[in-house]
Amino acid sequence: MQYELLDKINSPQDIKTFSMSQLNRLAAEVRDFITHCVSCTGGHLASNLGAIELTIAMHYVFNFSTDRLLWDVGHQCYAHKILTGRKELFKKLRQKDGISGFPSPDESEYDQFTVGHAGTAIPTAIGLALAADKLKTQEKIVAFVGDASIVNGLSFEALNNMGLVRRQLLVVLNDNSMAIDVSQGAIAQFLSKVRLSHTYEDLRKRTNRILEHMPLVGKRMEDALESFKRTLRMAITPNRLFESLNIPYFGPVDGHDISSLIEIFKAMSGLDRPAVLHVYTKKGKGFSPADDDPTRFHSTGPFKINGELESEKSTGKSFTASFSDSIVKLAAENDKIVAITAAMSDGTGLMKFKKQFESRYYDVGIAESVAVDIAAGQAKTGIRPFVCIYSTFLQRCFDQIFQEVALQNLPVVFCIDRAGLVGADGPTHHGLMDIGFLRMLPNMVLIAPANGVELELAMRFAAESKSPVAIRYPKEEVNDGICPEIFSQPFELGRSVTAKNGKDKIAVIAYGSIVNEALKAAESLKADNIEITVINARFAKPLDEKIVSLLRTDNSIITVEDHSIAGGFGSAVLEAAAEAGVGVSKIRILGVGDKFVQRDKRAAQLADSGIGAEGIADAVKKIIKAR
Amino acid sequence: MQYELLDKINSPQDIKTFSMSQLNRLAAEVRDFITHCVSCTGGHLASNLGAIELTIAMHYVFNFSTDRLLWDVGHQCYAHKILTGRKELFKKLRQKDGISGFPSPDESEYDQFTVGHAGTAIPTAIGLALAADKLKTQEKIVAFVGDASIVNGLSFEALNNMGLVRRQLLVVLNDNSMAIDVSQGAIAQFLSKVRLSHTYEDLRKRTNRILEHMPLVGKRMEDALESFKRTLRMAITPNRLFESLNIPYFGPVDGHDISSLIEIFKAMSGLDRPAVLHVYTKKGKGFSPADDDPTRFHSTGPFKINGELESEKSTGKSFTASFSDSIVKLAAENDKIVAITAAMSDGTGLMKFKKQFESRYYDVGIAESVAVDIAAGQAKTGIRPFVCIYSTFLQRCFDQIFQEVALQNLPVVFCIDRAGLVGADGPTHHGLMDIGFLRMLPNMVLIAPANGVELELAMRFAAESKSPVAIRYPKEEVNDGICPEIFSQPFELGRSVTAKNGKDKIAVIAYGSIVNEALKAAESLKADNIEITVINARFAKPLDEKIVSLLRTDNSIITVEDHSIAGGFGSAVLEAAAEAGVGVSKIRILGVGDKFVQRDKRAAQLADSGIGAEGIADAVKKIIKAR
Repeated sequence: MQYELLDKINSPQDIKTFSMSQLNRLAAEVRDFITHCVSCTGGHLASNLGAIELTIAMHYVFNFSTDRLLWDVGHQCYAHKILTGRKELFKKLRQKDGISGFPSPDESEYDQFTVGHAGTAIPTAIGLALAADKLKTQEKIVAFVGDASIVNGLSFEALNNMGLVRRQLLVVLNDNSMAIDVSQGAIAQFLSKVRLSHTYEDLRKRTNRILEHMPLVGKRMEDALESFKRTLRMAITPNRLFESLNIPYFGPVDGHDISSLIEIFKAMSGLDRPAVLHVYTKKGKGFSPADDDPTRFHSTGPFKINGELESEKSTGKSFTASFSDSIVKLAAENDKIVAITAAMSDGTGLMKFKKQFESRYYDVGIAESVAVDIAAGQAKTGIRPFVCIYSTFLQRCFDQIFQEVALQNLPVVFCIDRAGLVGADGPTHHGLMDIGFLRMLPNMVLIAPANGVELELAMRFAAESKSPVAIRYPKEEVNDGICPEIFSQPFELGRSVTAKNGKDKIAVIAYGSIVNEALKAAESLKADNIEITVINARFAKPLDEKIVSLLRTDNSIITVEDHSIAGGFGSAVLEAAAEAGVGVSKIRILGVGDKFVQRDKRAAQLADSGIGAEGIADAVKKIIKAR
Repeated sequence: MQYELLDKINSPQDIKTFSMSQLNRLAAEVRDFITHCVSCTGGHLASNLGAIELTIAMHYVFNFSTDRLLWDVGHQCYAHKILTGRKELFKKLRQKDGISGFPSPDESEYDQFTVGHAGTAIPTAIGLALAADKLKTQEKIVAFVGDASIVNGLSFEALNNMGLVRRQLLVVLNDNSMAIDVSQGAIAQFLSKVRLSHTYEDLRKRTNRILEHMPLVGKRMEDALESFKRTLRMAITPNRLFESLNIPYFGPVDGHDISSLIEIFKAMSGLDRPAVLHVYTKKGKGFSPADDDPTRFHSTGPFKINGELESEKSTGKSFTASFSDSIVKLAAENDKIVAITAAMSDGTGLMKFKKQFESRYYDVGIAESVAVDIAAGQAKTGIRPFVCIYSTFLQRCFDQIFQEVALQNLPVVFCIDRAGLVGADGPTHHGLMDIGFLRMLPNMVLIAPANGVELELAMRFAAESKSPVAIRYPKEEVNDGICPEIFSQPFELGRSVTAKNGKDKIAVIAYGSIVNEALKAAESLKADNIEITVINARFAKPLDEKIVSLLRTDNSIITVEDHSIAGGFGSAVLEAAAEAGVGVSKIRILGVGDKFVQRDKRAAQLADSGIGAEGIADAVKKIIKAR
């Protein structure tokens, strides 16, 4: 790929001398470059294609080596990365030796926070603004937020506290009228009503009016806003929301018109207090397959440039797909089952359920806390809610799980996808803490199935439980062929299953799909004439009494989990051993250590953490050697 | 205390035949009864005095044995408890053999959820409403929310998702224009502007207009709202906020006018979709000391009926008071230090700091998540934020601590008051999980000081740390006199201090103020000629190498913590032992077991959990006996 303009750009400084027509050509080149790169590597496509002109205009006006640009969620920062000296590395997007798919201060001074979760841009921008005020520094601060994450409670708490800031702080509301799936909730409906009431011509007029009335530095914001508003009476205005929060609002304007955006950013960069600029963009703009189906191209694997997906390399069925089938099956049998997602119907595998049981399906937008509380309310009446949230995002509703679910002992079922190491998305997206925070909660039952068959059995068990149940499973294929006769036994509360009995008095107790790695290790150890026992724990809470009994024997024990060692499954085994007063000197805990695991392929991350088959086999050999 | 009307009431059914004048007299009696009872027991006073008429009117109109009343936070439910058969028990408010200060389904069918945290009423009400819709039941649902907790992100997420509900759901916004301290943020300012623009006469007129235009059952809500609004144009209307969220809004009306409230509740109970009724009340109404100083009477100890506080029984200084002094001292030395609270300036001991360093003090309202993110933004620039949040409420910002603080390794200092068992507030308010969820985070440093002297030393250490630091301390006196020569040594990263050396090869390793219980145990054991070693761990993370070394010796080890056993300090010790491959068969973990600890005096809760001096001594004796 060769580009006339893009190839010359090594830092945002290089675009500052460009003419408008050059900037527009640059946008086209960046669009082409992103589309081609992502077609090879996979990644977030549609939202990035929508944000190119905005990104160029921001970099043209601001100087983000000293000014500060905060990305919310952060998956829409590709053009930003390309313009800030990471063009070559971008070809290895989301790869170990390439760059992250999210902002990362480790990569560039142009990135402020390593992010991946929603709602953080405005509140951290407030913190930076308060600090700048205190330290008397003059940098401009820009928070770039999508319409999907503006509805998160954290964004709202920040908007409500914007009054703390008495200096410049620009919130760019990038409104592509799509949350990750489809916009949910009143705010989304409201924005969409506004959008429908506008023509392109309106947007242009509005831009001009904003510029006409924009206060010069020092002019009172109130006067400017007043005169701006007088010229702009509309039937429906989104400013109502921001006005009630006492935040000056400007817009909506066209987010693909670089020239106007530059004028507006210039004008707004001079404001002496926080303000919101509402911008319309089109998700997937300029690449027609993504334009036509932005949901499919929100986060995509590699694809052909005509839009066809590359034939999947993986041939196995994923846990997500297995969940998808099971929830539909269970829901058909039990009409009390409902499902709740926080803007992740596709990612969590709920699309099929949604189609088949639309009236029993709820999407609350990126708002995990309210998802849990709605489930708590439902569960109180005999409805059986399945709350489907990735492990990393479940951290956002810990307190709701504590108070509204566990304390009331309500039978909510948590289906925790992406539990464990997640591969390319890196440290913001691993699910390494769910066992730790959930097992502190009285009443909670914690399950991890070994494969897809067990996932369905676990869900079946959970659907009948009188207590809340959390089921964790990884971003992984299901390996349903392994131990079919053993792993197809129905779940009983706190009962593990023994997958393999060995003569060598070493038992590997594995929690979740990692049991397959343990079984592989067992297989490989045979070559050294070592025969180990492998136990599929199934439950982290309550822990099987048999496991405690095993501790009383002269077996050496290795626990394995796809989770932080701190507070995890192994830790629960140690506590049980200490409680039982049995010797735990021979227990070895395998899991993820006290560090943030960087992006890589999941298999490599498992291996590096010592919880792949090889790591388990090594741990066994060490014990044998020490005997 | 004898009351003409109140004494006859055993259930809300009994008030349904009362005349208006009787209902008003009842309100006066309930007010007198609450004031007298709380003057003896302590409790939340001002907010309860403000909600009496509302509570009576709600019970008059609805039947909450089948209808559902959800209290947000729940500390304002006293009149409700008194009217629902708990009048006698109310005299033992917050005592073990009395009743809880918060709603509790264990006490009464009239209570729905055991709550104590903010923002849960609307979302759980949505869940109940969705379930009622599914199950085709007709109960009315009422969510009672104060203006302090409507600004919580969770409340907002719920308001944004209210559109999911297509049946009756009434939100009563009880606006007493005071958060726990003083209302914070744009919403609060907005509500207060509305409030100032109204006279009592306005409120009466408004009430009449609402009733005039209230739709009869079946009449379209849109028409009713339209005609209601036409008659009610105001310069400033709070309906703008709710309208932008597409929620029908009525009000404001006078929350002390029982007769009007009854009419309005009757009319609104017939609506076929969610609506908000905005009600003005006066915190502390009818008891002039509370009326004059509602902050002091928000949550009070026993007091004389003229308003004077009973002379405190406790003579010692609390950790909170010690924190209060230390933060002022540190801030005077270091102008980079700022402090952030989530509506708890008084509770966390920040009032003195606020007075002395107003420009370095931030209160974000009941919005813990944004408090953490603002701190993260500040810390990025060299400002040193101290985030002051109770342990139980810190659960609400776990994900922000993970991503925006720990992942970026920003030196935010968390001052975690109310860590451990909290006494009378019961299970919603214990801080039993902070060690567990925080120690899973790479980069975090975890400290618990033994007393007030150590608290200051810990804060001093934290103020210079390059990583985030979490300091936990309980609702307890500081006991500064104990081991003054040892506990006054400066803090060094991951260094414990040995408080006492004993001959008997039993080491009690205590984390936090509980070390004082261990020292008492050591004292009492002398009578049995047992001499133990007592170690003040100071750090849960990183754990002192010396502690691991101790595990290699032939000492028996007992760890003690005022925290859940699951995932706590002892668990960290076990993990370290397993990692080091040393014998840990002789480790015994003392902490709070896998159950919710009910309200009682804190000392009794410690004793029952086996972590008081006696429990520790017993554990030691058991080990000696087993040798």
